[in-house]
Amino acid sequence: MNRYAIGLDYGTLSARAVLVDTQDGNVAAECTYVYPHGVMDTQLPDGTPLPQGWALQHPSDYLKALDVLIPALMRESGVSAGQVIGIGLGCTSASILPVYHDKTPLCLSDTFAGEKHAYVKLWKHHGADAEAEQVCSVARERHESWLAAYGGNVSSEWTVPKVLETLRHAPDVYENADLFMEVMDWLVWVLTDTLCFSECAAGYKAFYQDGRYPDTEFFRALDPRMEHFIEEKFHAPVRSVGTCAGLLSEAMAARLNLHPGIPVGVPMVDAHCSVPGGGVDAPGEMMIIMGTSACHLMLSEQKVSMDGIQGVVRNGMMPGFYGVEAGQSCVGEHFAWAVEQCFPEAYAREANALGLSRHELMARKLEGYRPGASGLLALDWFNGVRSPLMDFDLNGLILGMHLQTRPEEIYLALMEATAYGTRLIVELYEKHGVPVRQILLSGGIPVRNPLLVQIYADVLERPVRVCGRKQASAVGAALLGMAAAGKGQSGYADLREATRAHRRVNGDAILPRKEHVQVYRELYSEYVRLLDYFGRGGNDVMRHLNRLRAANHA
Amino acid sequence: MNRYAIGLDYGTLSARAVLVDTQDGNVAAECTYVYPHGVMDTQLPDGTPLPQGWALQHPSDYLKALDVLIPALMRESGVSAGQVIGIGLGCTSASILPVYHDKTPLCLSDTFAGEKHAYVKLWKHHGADAEAEQVCSVARERHESWLAAYGGNVSSEWTVPKVLETLRHAPDVYENADLFMEVMDWLVWVLTDTLCFSECAAGYKAFYQDGRYPDTEFFRALDPRMEHFIEEKFHAPVRSVGTCAGLLSEAMAARLNLHPGIPVGVPMVDAHCSVPGGGVDAPGEMMIIMGTSACHLMLSEQKVSMDGIQGVVRNGMMPGFYGVEAGQSCVGEHFAWAVEQCFPEAYAREANALGLSRHELMARKLEGYRPGASGLLALDWFNGVRSPLMDFDLNGLILGMHLQTRPEEIYLALMEATAYGTRLIVELYEKHGVPVRQILLSGGIPVRNPLLVQIYADVLERPVRVCGRKQASAVGAALLGMAAAGKGQSGYADLREATRAHRRVNGDAILPRKEHVQVYRELYSEYVRLLDYFGRGGNDVMRHLNRLRAANHA
Repeated sequence: MNRYAIGLDYGTLSARAVLVDTQDGNVAAECTYVYPHGVMDTQLPDGTPLPQGWALQHPSDYLKALDVLIPALMRESGVSAGQVIGIGLGCTSASILPVYHDKTPLCLSDTFAGEKHAYVKLWKHHGADAEAEQVCSVARERHESWLAAYGGNVSSEWTVPKVLETLRHAPDVYENADLFMEVMDWLVWVLTDTLCFSECAAGYKAFYQDGRYPDTEFFRALDPRMEHFIEEKFHAPVRSVGTCAGLLSEAMAARLNLHPGIPVGVPMVDAHCSVPGGGVDAPGEMMIIMGTSACHLMLSEQKVSMDGIQGVVRNGMMPGFYGVEAGQSCVGEHFAWAVEQCFPEAYAREANALGLSRHELMARKLEGYRPGASGLLALDWFNGVRSPLMDFDLNGLILGMHLQTRPEEIYLALMEATAYGTRLIVELYEKHGVPVRQILLSGGIPVRNPLLVQIYADVLERPVRVCGRKQASAVGAALLGMAAAGKGQSGYADLREATRAHRRVNGDAILPRKEHVQVYRELYSEYVRLLDYFGRGGNDVMRHLNRLRAANHA
Repeated sequence: MNRYAIGLDYGTLSARAVLVDTQDGNVAAECTYVYPHGVMDTQLPDGTPLPQGWALQHPSDYLKALDVLIPALMRESGVSAGQVIGIGLGCTSASILPVYHDKTPLCLSDTFAGEKHAYVKLWKHHGADAEAEQVCSVARERHESWLAAYGGNVSSEWTVPKVLETLRHAPDVYENADLFMEVMDWLVWVLTDTLCFSECAAGYKAFYQDGRYPDTEFFRALDPRMEHFIEEKFHAPVRSVGTCAGLLSEAMAARLNLHPGIPVGVPMVDAHCSVPGGGVDAPGEMMIIMGTSACHLMLSEQKVSMDGIQGVVRNGMMPGFYGVEAGQSCVGEHFAWAVEQCFPEAYAREANALGLSRHELMARKLEGYRPGASGLLALDWFNGVRSPLMDFDLNGLILGMHLQTRPEEIYLALMEATAYGTRLIVELYEKHGVPVRQILLSGGIPVRNPLLVQIYADVLERPVRVCGRKQASAVGAALLGMAAAGKGQSGYADLREATRAHRRVNGDAILPRKEHVQVYRELYSEYVRLLDYFGRGGNDVMRHLNRLRAANHA
């Protein structure tokens, strides 16, 4: 009888579940559940309005997802409960929830149902900008050693700013909460009755470094009421990814029609799940998860610190290694912008006639193109800059336009610009002792866009492969379940073994084309010069334009 | 019985004729004749191929235009031959033709019918780039005083480079030509049997300054064979605009069914004809002729010299004044680019449904816009830069793009950029003692695009009017005919009187909106900073991109 692990991937708009065969790694079934409340960004269920920039979720949606997805998986695959040997979870992170000791979220109590700070502050909740600035400046003043692991910056999307926002604006929520916790850890607690925190989320989002959180002095400097935040409201054993968090409880097993006692793995940040899910088990290979934005994930033997990085966390992606993360704030959205705004009627007709998507038509029109021939150079900053500048007060640029400039050339320039932006990150990694020997692209875009893959190979001057997993994150979650189950049950002693066994790559590695490399080096050097000029103080025109834009917006 | 003057406007693709009432200035009839040979840019009539960048015309087309247009005017208007009291001509310039003493163009002889250098080198013929560079460097080395009147530059579109090109590549054409001449002067010669050169064309295109051409030393330095070019092959009395060049000959009167002896005015460069035609008779008002590109024409009491100007010529636009010319190489073509390349299918459907042109739809979408709200800033260099940089190795830029950036915002940014480019020219004029108190826009674009007119008022901080003449150039030509006829015949003693009498302006002056002026000042200062950086050596990325573009073009 084959054995299977369940992988649960809690995303922004939906949760996805996969059932993965422990032996051949095939996905036996896959289901998706769209959250009924979605992202609450205008009002609470009771109509309480939300300020701009807010993004909340409803915890009951997560539980409902379990109830729907797991029976559906079993039904669809025909696998019996006894064949399931492990469960793993990936989840959006710094999705923070205040709960009572009995696991009940405050927002599900009558007292706090109308209180916005009592709900899950989703990763992209942007209500804590002021708090993030304060956290960052206090950390800098105090020379907190952990700050270097985050590129010297603090995002408003992280845990401490979000909790500080709650303390400031809803002190009764802060007072009444017994715990603030990641949704992923709360779900594991619900499934297993075991309370622990994932080292992955704690490390990337809550400043957990070298086995500890920032000290009481730091928190007191933020707000005296927060001095004992960790001991009082953020306290649980921190567990490394790849280990077992707990066993499925009798109650939850009955509810989900599974056997009790199934090992549940320590959960991971969803994007980071793609590292095992995509088959990266060692340093040297950069995994780029490419969607609207992009994450650049690497394993490293050494702890490194560098400006412009998102986070460096021990055991954060794979036991035994530091997981290093950088990011580009806008990748696929650039291409979407181009085919939306710079896609003439004639092109739309042509795409229809040929039965091609807009992106495919662009690729068709670019067949046989030569780098440099368009004369264009762009900065991929339409949504600000994450790594390396960490500056969201910058914006996009297209330079070198002629009357002959065509939409497909703009599309190409934007693809090339995201490749240059990636090369910056590759060079940053290498400069700090994290060699990048090859690239693995994950996500739908590289699968659908071979031209982009070739451009990345030419610009990055490294072999580029495309991940063969459509749902690398959910598969990675299933591997966490296999690792938690251990060799006897799953056949794999640890996460690394499971990862290596189930790596899937689409086709051959794409190699740089020698004749393109030299031109791209020249274009890249011009890109870097523009980056320095507009991004590092040579000319603050972008900031000035943003101020005028904000001041004059209708 | 009303009296009329004929205005002939020889353009690039067609000639246009108008019959203008001397008293009320109304256009009694208007006709157009498209040249059968058009612009010859790939081959001669006999199939002889032409190199890239060439642009020739066939002189028989110009004569045929007379034969067709003048009878058509008379027929359409019902005016009798005896009512025509004067004829004037505007014409493209530095459209250079080699001819024999008997007026026959060399290209119409059997000997030279297959020789490309024997045809009219049209204004936009670009075969003399190397010669222009040589003319410019020789003039600089010799500190030729006349060079300052051309902003210190020599265009390959001008007379001497074109003739030098002929001497170098077809010495037998040079040898056999009795005269090289402007098409406008040749046409007057044909009409009147009187040989003279227009001071307008001689001044703007053939270095005629302060009553003389460059001396023999200069021409010898270009090429010893050209030492006596002026005396031998470019010799005719130079006549000021507004005077009579000669009287219609018996033969031509018979051919055209007009009365012999009608005064024919000294002809003018077509664009410059718009100054009288548009009603500008005094300093202080800048006339901007806006089409694909733009000319900025001013009258000045004093002779001025400044970098980046196209030409300063005494009596060049209006007797008694210096005519000052600057230019932008790309204006309307920017907007055409935007509605062609950045005009999505949904916009096309919307324009159709509303019965609007693409430009009108853009204007509709921009109703109530506020300067600065788009966050965009562009450089209007999609076709290089004429004034003030005189640099065609630059190219366009759009900066400040967001994922929210919409096509109409790109369209707006390009309109604004051409206004900033105009402000640069206005400031250049004022800095050199040519005050610009008000603006007169001429051409189809300002008539059809009130938003553009308002933007110009806001950016230039001056009242802007729109010329009420659809064919200002042809009307200006007719005014030359009235001035040539004199007070007894036309009622006007000179060109200035005729100009003042027939000024037509569309509606009221458009005034700057106070609330927009301040934002545009800020945006303009950023524009200037980008111009300095990319246009004056701060960063040569545009040149580098152009090199790569040329090298990699398929």
